[in-house]
Amino acid sequence: MKQNTIEQQIEVADNSIMAKDYDTLMSIYTDDAVLVIEPRRSAVGKQQIRNAFIKINEFFDNELKVAQNGLEVLESGDTALVVANTIVSGPNFQAVERKATYVFKKSNDGFWLCAIDNSYGHEIIQKPCIRSLF
Amino acid sequence: MKQNTIEQQIEVADNSIMAKDYDTLMSIYTDDAVLVIEPRRSAVGKQQIRNAFIKINEFFDNELKVAQNGLEVLESGDTALVVANTIVSGPNFQAVERKATYVFKKSNDGFWLCAIDNSYGHEIIQKPCIRSLF
Repeated sequence: MKQNTIEQQIEVADNSIMAKDYDTLMSIYTDDAVLVIEPRRSAVGKQQIRNAFIKINEFFDNELKVAQNGLEVLESGDTALVVANTIVSGPNFQAVERKATYVFKKSNDGFWLCAIDNSYGHEIIQKPCIRSLF
Repeated sequence: MKQNTIEQQIEVADNSIMAKDYDTLMSIYTDDAVLVIEPRRSAVGKQQIRNAFIKINEFFDNELKVAQNGLEVLESGDTALVVANTIVSGPNFQAVERKATYVFKKSNDGFWLCAIDNSYGHEIIQKPCIRSLF
């Protein structure tokens, strides 16, 4: 394996999702990665994440399409935050743009792996209520 | 120091910003933390972050107010993503709500510290352009 960048890993992930190549897709996640399936429901670990992607793809008639409409990476040592405009669509599903947030970690052998995959961004916040505001 | 939660650290940070207690504020950051000052401009490391907060507070007439209008934490091992509705205001500045994104790391002695502080969320994405869309 060659060294990679986070942008390259995201491209590998997007292409693997669309090719339904779940072995390659799982190679970009850490062993204890968390994937938000939908607000208030997450998959933890590669087996759950693999199963979740199979079901998500089935939901999109097995033709889920994913693309990034701009993204930015902020690195701090072996940790990185990605904010991305992620477009999701399917044959019978109009494209929607999600404000996705991903966290990557650099492994001991220098590979960036996804530890937290939250394509829903701030949609996962429950019942906002102002706490001690001024 | 007692064990803490990420929510407690964010509360400490917000209170320290408003009290202009920069020593306490710096205690919640990792040594190589990144703070987004504004889109396309970041501070790296505690000294730069401290100076940035002093200037940000001056910009808000030294009465910067910060509050969280709902937040959610996603943990994966020693790494956590926080998405938060962060409200920023000052005496002559109407309150604005930012879709903030923070990354925390657990230190070897078990304390959650902020490694990436991006209160601008997706506003930092430059010139979105659709890449290989379907």
